[in-house]
Amino acid sequence: MTRPQQLLTPGPTAVPPEVLRALAEPVIHHRSPDFTEVFAVAQERLRAVFRTEREVLVLTCSGTGAFESAVVNLHSPGDRVLAVSQGEFGERWQKLASVFGCDVVPLTYGWGEAPRPDDLREALAESGAQTVFLVHSETSTGVVCDLEPLLAVCNEAGALSVVDAVSSLGAVPLETDAWGADVVVTGSQKALMTPPGLAFVAASERAWERAATASLPRFYWDWERQRVAQEKGSTPSTPATSLVVALVAALGLVLEGGLETAFARHRALGRACRAGIKAIGLELYSPDDDSAAVLTGALTPEGIDAVALRLALRDRHGITIAGGHGDLVSRLFRIGHIGHVGVEELAGALAAIEDELAASGADVEQGKAAPAAYEAFGTVVTA
Amino acid sequence: MTRPQQLLTPGPTAVPPEVLRALAEPVIHHRSPDFTEVFAVAQERLRAVFRTEREVLVLTCSGTGAFESAVVNLHSPGDRVLAVSQGEFGERWQKLASVFGCDVVPLTYGWGEAPRPDDLREALAESGAQTVFLVHSETSTGVVCDLEPLLAVCNEAGALSVVDAVSSLGAVPLETDAWGADVVVTGSQKALMTPPGLAFVAASERAWERAATASLPRFYWDWERQRVAQEKGSTPSTPATSLVVALVAALGLVLEGGLETAFARHRALGRACRAGIKAIGLELYSPDDDSAAVLTGALTPEGIDAVALRLALRDRHGITIAGGHGDLVSRLFRIGHIGHVGVEELAGALAAIEDELAASGADVEQGKAAPAAYEAFGTVVTA
Repeated sequence: MTRPQQLLTPGPTAVPPEVLRALAEPVIHHRSPDFTEVFAVAQERLRAVFRTEREVLVLTCSGTGAFESAVVNLHSPGDRVLAVSQGEFGERWQKLASVFGCDVVPLTYGWGEAPRPDDLREALAESGAQTVFLVHSETSTGVVCDLEPLLAVCNEAGALSVVDAVSSLGAVPLETDAWGADVVVTGSQKALMTPPGLAFVAASERAWERAATASLPRFYWDWERQRVAQEKGSTPSTPATSLVVALVAALGLVLEGGLETAFARHRALGRACRAGIKAIGLELYSPDDDSAAVLTGALTPEGIDAVALRLALRDRHGITIAGGHGDLVSRLFRIGHIGHVGVEELAGALAAIEDELAASGADVEQGKAAPAAYEAFGTVVTA
Repeated sequence: MTRPQQLLTPGPTAVPPEVLRALAEPVIHHRSPDFTEVFAVAQERLRAVFRTEREVLVLTCSGTGAFESAVVNLHSPGDRVLAVSQGEFGERWQKLASVFGCDVVPLTYGWGEAPRPDDLREALAESGAQTVFLVHSETSTGVVCDLEPLLAVCNEAGALSVVDAVSSLGAVPLETDAWGADVVVTGSQKALMTPPGLAFVAASERAWERAATASLPRFYWDWERQRVAQEKGSTPSTPATSLVVALVAALGLVLEGGLETAFARHRALGRACRAGIKAIGLELYSPDDDSAAVLTGALTPEGIDAVALRLALRDRHGITIAGGHGDLVSRLFRIGHIGHVGVEELAGALAAIEDELAASGADVEQGKAAPAAYEAFGTVVTA
């Protein structure tokens, strides 16, 4: 008998059984009334989670592919972009835009920091950049930035904003239209509780106008080709139809209790996870406040290898969590609390971490983490 | 109760229940030993269907995306490519390469024709092109070209070949290594019996050498980034993990009886479909020989609208077939016989076509098509 497996990573995330059942429905053809019907519902639900009136482009790719589509649809060679970075993904977008010949002005924070509106205002004034890249939730560190004032600065300066909302959309508030975000990019495999393979882009009228004159070459990523096909109820080349069917089911679940409930649940899960980590006596790497609603990063005690801890959790407990990067690879581990996860799974994972740390000889008193998690979680209904 | 649905299109194709079950397994993380293990089996099976010793790149995109990856990894702006076209997809690759600044020399045949080695030799000598695009199975027309001698011409001339094998690989013979194809591109959703969302590229050493100096910008499509990640058992950005799990199951089924059996089955299915179409008294649009093993195209009788026929098949019989293009949209329909389809489904669809044509007032004697299909199919084991 195989052991039950739990996925507690910040994406791909665990997917509800209803979504897996929808995924396993017989394949439908992308140029058929069956798909057109499903696609229309997907559009309606995507607009609801994006909080936008715009058409949401549905691309078959990862979040990186969708971000690349924003770079090549919005720019001509030499265009100056201000790329704000506070971790792995911000650095990725800086590199990506450089590859395509953009004149990238970096505004780089230390990993774990959050970008500040005043710095952005100053960097925009100095650089005269016409585009700003922002990472809403930096999955490598757990930092979710305060996006609204950053977008206000972009709008004051008349710069287009491109928001990486891959691990934030559906987990924490993001008001695409109300906050004036020009381009918002996300993926299927995080808070939207769908397996990876689809990514989504919502672009403002201003962004579409820019795209009309931007000269970087594009074909697969071409937004205009995509829009024309979507108006006819499909996509320009064959989309991942089964994932679209699964997405419709997943977004139905995300929306059924209301987005505010989902946001409250993610905040409560973050509180529970942090309380458990602290009860074990571990140091938090992600912020110790309600902004850290997507994932919790923590450091192992000195001398305890985080890679070995993760493997032991997987091999002995069937629990998969995420690791760290660079210098922190041997100390950092990250627990995702987006997707199909409740406080029960978090409490169980924290108890397993206690068990493994104790087995590794760490000075840990067992039995503290789970009660602390439950207490911090409180009475929020997990739906 | 919903009506049973049958998908008889040349992709996406019907997927076996075992593959749908694998698709619905709980999601795994792409940077975990679980994925690395599955990915290694996927590699081994992909090499077997590609008939290659090369690493097969696994991209999350449609076939168009994978073809775009070949264009941008192999070329610098202004590079001359000879793009052979005999239908919709050949024309798409001509356009795509033009978008990326290649100097595209077209060798364009009429839709329904097959490219000839002598023409290719002459066009290569005249153009001095360093790359040749070939479409193995042109899904818009049903023409499967005789690829081996065309590849021999490319190799004589020292030109790199890029083969669109999206609807051919796994359906008809294609010996990537033995025939000296430099780049072979295919998708998950055709003869490989997996839902759409993954595409695959196998590149020769010569192609990798070209990629090392080709200057077109790429990031998501970058083969070298992909190869480095695949050597570590994953992909550079999050792949469609559930589709990779499904692919492993599907390729197991494709390979279990041996590829030669699969090829023989597709030829027999083509014979059965053509025999049925002719028994109804309809005109074939695709070739009337064993090369047409992927799909069968046929024309409705004068005055019978093919679009209405397809909708009636879908609405009244639950059978989805594909349509035609341009001038032929009101006459052409296409029946796919790749994927999880047997002679039983073809015979049933042909009988339904007879029924609908009779209902539309066409001069059709019912009861002829299915027996003709069974007779032509013969005794091939459908496995």
